[in-house]
Amino acid sequence: MTPPAYAVFRGCIIDAPALGALRIRPAAALGVDRRSGRIIGVAAEATAPPERLVGEWTGAAVAAADVEVTDLGADQFLMPGLIDTHTHAPQFSFIGVGHDLPLMEWLEKYTYRHESELQDVARARALYADVVRRVLRSGCTMAAYYGTIHRESTCALVDAVRAAGQRAYVGKVCMDANSPDYYCETTDESLRETEAFVRAVLGDQSGADDALLVRPIITPRFAPACTVRCMRALGDIARERRLPIQSHMCESPAEIEFAKRCFPAYASYSAIYHAMGLFGPRTIMAHCIHMSDDDMRLVRECGVGVSHCPNSNFSLSSGVADVRRLLDAGIPVGLGTDVSGGYSSSIIDAMRMAAAASRVLTAQRGPAASAPLSTAELLFLATQGGARVMGMHDHIGTLDPGKLFDALVVDLAAPGSHVPAPAAAPAVARAQQLGRIEEAWALRAEQFVYLADDRNIARVYISAKLVHSL
Amino acid sequence: MTPPAYAVFRGCIIDAPALGALRIRPAAALGVDRRSGRIIGVAAEATAPPERLVGEWTGAAVAAADVEVTDLGADQFLMPGLIDTHTHAPQFSFIGVGHDLPLMEWLEKYTYRHESELQDVARARALYADVVRRVLRSGCTMAAYYGTIHRESTCALVDAVRAAGQRAYVGKVCMDANSPDYYCETTDESLRETEAFVRAVLGDQSGADDALLVRPIITPRFAPACTVRCMRALGDIARERRLPIQSHMCESPAEIEFAKRCFPAYASYSAIYHAMGLFGPRTIMAHCIHMSDDDMRLVRECGVGVSHCPNSNFSLSSGVADVRRLLDAGIPVGLGTDVSGGYSSSIIDAMRMAAAASRVLTAQRGPAASAPLSTAELLFLATQGGARVMGMHDHIGTLDPGKLFDALVVDLAAPGSHVPAPAAAPAVARAQQLGRIEEAWALRAEQFVYLADDRNIARVYISAKLVHSL
Ligand SMILES: [Zn+2]
Ligand SMILES: [Zn+2]
Repeated sequence: MTPPAYAVFRGCIIDAPALGALRIRPAAALGVDRRSGRIIGVAAEATAPPERLVGEWTGAAVAAADVEVTDLGADQFLMPGLIDTHTHAPQFSFIGVGHDLPLMEWLEKYTYRHESELQDVARARALYADVVRRVLRSGCTMAAYYGTIHRESTCALVDAVRAAGQRAYVGKVCMDANSPDYYCETTDESLRETEAFVRAVLGDQSGADDALLVRPIITPRFAPACTVRCMRALGDIARERRLPIQSHMCESPAEIEFAKRCFPAYASYSAIYHAMGLFGPRTIMAHCIHMSDDDMRLVRECGVGVSHCPNSNFSLSSGVADVRRLLDAGIPVGLGTDVSGGYSSSIIDAMRMAAAASRVLTAQRGPAASAPLSTAELLFLATQGGARVMGMHDHIGTLDPGKLFDALVVDLAAPGSHVPAPAAAPAVARAQQLGRIEEAWALRAEQFVYLADDRNIARVYISAKLVHSL
Repeated sequence: MTPPAYAVFRGCIIDAPALGALRIRPAAALGVDRRSGRIIGVAAEATAPPERLVGEWTGAAVAAADVEVTDLGADQFLMPGLIDTHTHAPQFSFIGVGHDLPLMEWLEKYTYRHESELQDVARARALYADVVRRVLRSGCTMAAYYGTIHRESTCALVDAVRAAGQRAYVGKVCMDANSPDYYCETTDESLRETEAFVRAVLGDQSGADDALLVRPIITPRFAPACTVRCMRALGDIARERRLPIQSHMCESPAEIEFAKRCFPAYASYSAIYHAMGLFGPRTIMAHCIHMSDDDMRLVRECGVGVSHCPNSNFSLSSGVADVRRLLDAGIPVGLGTDVSGGYSSSIIDAMRMAAAASRVLTAQRGPAASAPLSTAELLFLATQGGARVMGMHDHIGTLDPGKLFDALVVDLAAPGSHVPAPAAAPAVARAQQLGRIEEAWALRAEQFVYLADDRNIARVYISAKLVHSL
């Protein structure tokens, strides 16, 4: 028996199509074509029978048997999958330890040593299967992963992502300068292995096919760890194969100093990447905490997206990124966990930490000069904002017709949930009783942001496929 | 059949007897007298049979049947209960919502309205039963609770705490000035009800009996919400009945301005409390973010303890408390959740947020000027530091003979745990393989701080009684 070709979800749908705009559709129906993995239609008021809705959306006669209907519970809602724009799969091997050092010392004492051990492909395979499960379970439907410098191990990460059905960019890390003997490549190695990695993942396909579940991402670790020749050639590969690019920038004062020492000829940190051909609308730069006006200008002009990783920024004493300044400048911003600079693999945690970071600046400058991030803004950053940073905003990030169905069923009443029942939350109960249903759901969306964890992620869909359920 | 009079726990014991000192006893035995609820002895190396150990500790012959033995698993350890030095039980009714406003607006728009509804005793009873369960389940063995201005409802909180077997200070809140009509008392009411509350909880007993599970705490909300006559009389009651005192201080610039406007004759915020007779070694002042040198001096000289509530400070855009400065000055510091200024009811969260707050200052001033809080320091603040702030450091806070057995069995391998198994954490596995067992446990203690949640709190004991288990 083949499963029904279509799926319809009925219940509350919450997404954030624009910065600050929370869209709540309390009694909607959303239709999915399982073959394409895409949303075929959304009815704000789900009154017609599902097969008739699907018929209208597809323009064809559809029988009831062709539609699998899921009715969400009273404490459940459907939302876009969370997007992690920056994480390091190998660093899950030391998640939660090593929070005693700032960035540069941390890299040398913990990171490079642990990453170098992933040369062992069997070890990588075991670790990465677990990593992808953890990331999925936290509700992340698309992640931008760093692997290690090792091609084969990073291919094992691709295998793990594919086996789990997750959407991802996966990068073989490039490091051909200023790196320890035991964890460094020659320039030729770095480029040859990158090309081989791209071929292994993509074959002859174009990197521009947005429906591809897993794609390689060009990954110079950060400018000081790479030579000019390496970075220029990586920029060429990205352009030729139409691939996204990821790296780190302006994370800590010591790192910025290091970059300046390594590249004294350039006016700013961003000018280095720009000159190497690494800056464009499919470039993801992590952190961007300490940006000069020059950095701001180049990032904005090139359409570079910023991955804001607040947990990591706190944990490594890197400083507090001014997300409001980035947003006001029109720079795309998404959230990243940056495991294990950050200790949490959850984008829900990243929303909370982004809230905390923004409120540190509000306290220092006043709400007029630096307004705190709202719940609606946090949810945008975690979904459509992240999609924009990934260059995937036309395909994921909201629940609109035509988009890939990457979505979560959130269950606020799941076992162990920290979210109080409406009966124990008078503001919610009151709004419900007064028929102010959208207001009630807005409060519950806020409870989700501040109180939820993986126990509330009841189901995870990617390209309409159920990839995780509790 | 009566249960055995003694209990012995065998396995790893971790506590933090002094700031920065993590004490790890990987293969210890700890004996408890169930009648007194106290620890009778700890053997760092548990080689003798339990009944012989108990015999040595008690100086009497003890049969094997008199001792219940608990062997901890390889992924479990015993630690002191977490201490929440500042939380508001009524505010659990709006936990996780209202994070859009700074303190003073937040009080008016959310807090006072929600608290005023707790005049309804039945409603209070239902809410508080749930609150205490939530707090216990997060591993908090002793909390300093604020109730509301209502005596009867706050007695319901006392009932809930007693029913759950938790150790607590519980305060009827006093507000006889600058408060909304619908949530305010006259001075006479405030004092009469406070005295009635103290009598209801304590009868004729002295508040100085540290073995009492629940005791009243004198609770002027904060200086601007109280008259001079009210505060002076509250100071008298505290002195006569030998009771602890709690309030708020130096939380936000607007609040400090407000206090100065209300009490222009005083040199500083702390000078107000001091003049009212509210400053002493059993006084807990929440927040203390923006303290002048004068505030620092008075707090230190009077032995006042500070409840650091980093989640709340972030969430209400209050600023970043300089815990290192307080500690360097010799001021006692513990952690508080400050629900629902803080959205988390967990002291594990408070440790992580305290880490984040300290690292914001490290980033701004450099590690030499403001060293980040270490894992050992965070664990101290969460246990013995909190006990000191509560004036209970001789009775709880560490696992030493003579202390009350308020303890947690932590299970790092519990279902759903985010803590990786040693096999997936090479630093831990390597330390174990090399026989560096203490180092392995130090790493696992760090994993506990950064990755654990209520799923890892397998059992909670208070006065040797099992009050929560998974
Ligand atoms: Zn990173
Ligand atoms: Zn408070």
